[in-house]
Amino acid sequence: MSMTRRDWIMGVGLAGGFGAAQIALQGLGLETAHAETRLPALAPGSGAGRHVVILGAGIAGMTAAHELRRAGYHCTVLEARDRVGGKSWTIRGGDEVRFTDGRTQACRFDEGQYFNAGPGRIPSHHTALIGYCRAFGVPLEVEINSNHNAAVQDNAVYDGKPMTLRRVWTDTRGHVSELLAKSVNQHALDQSITAEDRSRMIDFLRQYGDLSPELLYKGSPRAGYVSLPGAADDAGVIEQPLPMDVLLDAGMWHGIMFDELFVMQTTMLQPVGGMDRIAKAFAHRLGGAIRTGCIVTRIARTGAGVTISYTNEKSRRTHAVEADLCLCTIPLAVLSNIPSDFSPDVKRAIAAPGSHMRQKMAFQGPRFWERDYHVYGGISYLKSPDAVIWHPSGDLMSDQGVLVLYGGEKEISPQPLDRQADLARAAIDAIYPGHAASLTRPVSVTWGNIPYSLGTGAVFTPATQWAYERLNKPDGPFFFAADYLTNVNGWQEGAIRSAYHAIAAMAGSAATAAL
Amino acid sequence: MSMTRRDWIMGVGLAGGFGAAQIALQGLGLETAHAETRLPALAPGSGAGRHVVILGAGIAGMTAAHELRRAGYHCTVLEARDRVGGKSWTIRGGDEVRFTDGRTQACRFDEGQYFNAGPGRIPSHHTALIGYCRAFGVPLEVEINSNHNAAVQDNAVYDGKPMTLRRVWTDTRGHVSELLAKSVNQHALDQSITAEDRSRMIDFLRQYGDLSPELLYKGSPRAGYVSLPGAADDAGVIEQPLPMDVLLDAGMWHGIMFDELFVMQTTMLQPVGGMDRIAKAFAHRLGGAIRTGCIVTRIARTGAGVTISYTNEKSRRTHAVEADLCLCTIPLAVLSNIPSDFSPDVKRAIAAPGSHMRQKMAFQGPRFWERDYHVYGGISYLKSPDAVIWHPSGDLMSDQGVLVLYGGEKEISPQPLDRQADLARAAIDAIYPGHAASLTRPVSVTWGNIPYSLGTGAVFTPATQWAYERLNKPDGPFFFAADYLTNVNGWQEGAIRSAYHAIAAMAGSAATAAL
Repeated sequence: MSMTRRDWIMGVGLAGGFGAAQIALQGLGLETAHAETRLPALAPGSGAGRHVVILGAGIAGMTAAHELRRAGYHCTVLEARDRVGGKSWTIRGGDEVRFTDGRTQACRFDEGQYFNAGPGRIPSHHTALIGYCRAFGVPLEVEINSNHNAAVQDNAVYDGKPMTLRRVWTDTRGHVSELLAKSVNQHALDQSITAEDRSRMIDFLRQYGDLSPELLYKGSPRAGYVSLPGAADDAGVIEQPLPMDVLLDAGMWHGIMFDELFVMQTTMLQPVGGMDRIAKAFAHRLGGAIRTGCIVTRIARTGAGVTISYTNEKSRRTHAVEADLCLCTIPLAVLSNIPSDFSPDVKRAIAAPGSHMRQKMAFQGPRFWERDYHVYGGISYLKSPDAVIWHPSGDLMSDQGVLVLYGGEKEISPQPLDRQADLARAAIDAIYPGHAASLTRPVSVTWGNIPYSLGTGAVFTPATQWAYERLNKPDGPFFFAADYLTNVNGWQEGAIRSAYHAIAAMAGSAATAAL
Repeated sequence: MSMTRRDWIMGVGLAGGFGAAQIALQGLGLETAHAETRLPALAPGSGAGRHVVILGAGIAGMTAAHELRRAGYHCTVLEARDRVGGKSWTIRGGDEVRFTDGRTQACRFDEGQYFNAGPGRIPSHHTALIGYCRAFGVPLEVEINSNHNAAVQDNAVYDGKPMTLRRVWTDTRGHVSELLAKSVNQHALDQSITAEDRSRMIDFLRQYGDLSPELLYKGSPRAGYVSLPGAADDAGVIEQPLPMDVLLDAGMWHGIMFDELFVMQTTMLQPVGGMDRIAKAFAHRLGGAIRTGCIVTRIARTGAGVTISYTNEKSRRTHAVEADLCLCTIPLAVLSNIPSDFSPDVKRAIAAPGSHMRQKMAFQGPRFWERDYHVYGGISYLKSPDAVIWHPSGDLMSDQGVLVLYGGEKEISPQPLDRQADLARAAIDAIYPGHAASLTRPVSVTWGNIPYSLGTGAVFTPATQWAYERLNKPDGPFFFAADYLTNVNGWQEGAIRSAYHAIAAMAGSAATAAL
């Protein structure tokens, strides 16, 4: 794989979903002997008499607890925060965002407004996650990931003017089709295309690119109108085509291709009212098995089992849990600072990978993007900062909404909070001139500053692939699970699949122990 | 415009929205002096003392009545049916569908299930319609028009197996990119591309088509997976690319391009609970101005004004309304059979165009498309019959839903109702084998058989363009409005814009009369 390719794929990851990059990397040629990661069939009662302590009440930890309990295991889930969900965090009015350096922000959104600071969308093929939503009665609605009327804006391109995605997509396809039709008719491709297919190809390109009878691309209504068609002789005026050299700019490519990634394709879904509905539904079923505010201070082996020491955040007292097995879902950047009896190679593996440091910044404001720009949901793409504007998909047509700027880790994250809000507003103004001033009540979540996260997950490279493989194997009584230990990195589905993988290994271990 | 081009455009119209064809035709090169069709500024009270009789309580007629009343006109709206909305018709359990030949169907859907037999989607740029939704408090939600996980199926292609749209789209783009990269590298396009852009083009195509380092298309995760990625070493198995000769088949093109039409691009919207919420909101504001069950029997001139005779459907008695002006929105196929004092050229214009004869057939059933196929909303494309499967966008994840087969006018419409349902089920089984048997309670709406519609609107061709122009001008006290008298043919927005056009002409006429 060339660096260009990898760079682009990583760039896509930066622009949007954390996991897009990993998914894209995995699919490009890797073909290993293959077995799907499914929920292992654990016989009811097969875990009777076994105690599992689970570190972290995120999606991975809660999935494991839910399924292990169904098989009769006794489970204790220790969670450092005062809430469940981990990265799956929905922030509402009255919530507080606290950074590791002590800075705090109080969210002042109106009732009903929310901000998914972590995952915010569910691909339709994430069947395990959707299956839990069905089972738990968590209603899902459409998350609009692709909107042809959203825009891409790059100061270096087209005089910095925003261009609708429909223009960029349509004009690109038009130019590509014109050039290919020219090649075919010049017999440049006779080695690759049969004579019969040549004419079929031309007919196809005519429609694909909306070419003129002379096979030229002269613009298309698919790219949109300067003035819409109306009654009688009002035929409308279509947009003039963007020149090809504008469209070849690398800065455009995110906007062109991002929502074509497998994990980003419509139809995408979201829980009505906030992503944390799912985590809360898990927690509701787990009840007292989850202990929040419990900060793990030591992870020890005792005999064949484990002893986990933790401090209760409120009482400041230290307790210990003994168990047969331990499933650790604590983020590696946090885990590497907790004293443990992990094997030396596991300790090295925990310390090996880097961490994603995403930022999302949310504002509440009147829905000018809908009212004045007819943009209902979807994503607009900016180059400076390198970020996207994420429009809300729920409660369309209502007065107020939460607009999210996602990205800008280089340009925005290092700044003081006030300055962050100013920079984010300036970025939004590049697409919605004069409107960002109406965006108020900023909430910034720079994940690198969030306690017990210290980032949005691990990043494995070919150089640290060994660490990925090591952590996917048990270390005596210790097992690991997290979205980043799967090829669905950055997604709740990955957390679930990782939990399934760990459960299977734990059940195998239990079976061995019982012999 | 070549016949191929026109045929394709008309084909697109056939496959989906009635109005797509007209829109596409209009945008392709027509560039006339242009003024947008807007709501004319009618001074409050400017219509005082003037009586307008409006024939038809569809969207055009009710828009006109609503706006004219705001300017002080007295309006009487005569509607033949026992409901408002015209083609904007939502059918629910307890409703009856009656054909002109006396056949009737009782809809037996469960509470909460519905079927939009006419328009079923609203593009985000239909700002007049959306404006009324805002003003009237009609909540809108996403209508999923494009779903990469929906499918295209053609008995003549790929052994008749359904192919997901993501595969068709991705593999097509991959092959196109590979061929173009080859041409560029063979210097076949040096006349068209500068040396600098040549390398930019190659870089672009690499990403656009997801090409290998050698610039070959070898498949892409964007096309989807045979086996999804999971935990640890489970990298997933991507779909093998479809061969280019399969993708060049004309039968694929609807699926490839339909939702790229300007009017079909995401984000699209729909009223929560059924399209007729809009018509009902108009009617609520018009109150007693609308008289339903009033079948117009004669349209006469009396002095400078008009006299409209009608029969009350229930009492069977005949009445007459005298007015200064008449706005006629009765479908031309119906209007041509009503005795009138229209000028001879207007009578010829009314008789000139053909009529669309669309069919939609709806079934209620368990949402197997969501549960077993992960298809949440969107459209799948069939070739035999030439039809689409429209999956519901609302109430995702619920147990039951209404699945619509739209099209099949040649193959299905001429058959008896029982046979229609069997044929529609067989068509759906081509994509969802074995599932159509769970689809029950069929409701067929062949619009050519619907009284007071006799089709879904007029079709003007270059040969009948004169009729389109004639009907967009007044005939003494008579004015005409309908979606098909605009370049937004087949859409509620067109009906509104046509009403605006007619109102402006009527106000001009009133001003003249006042001199």
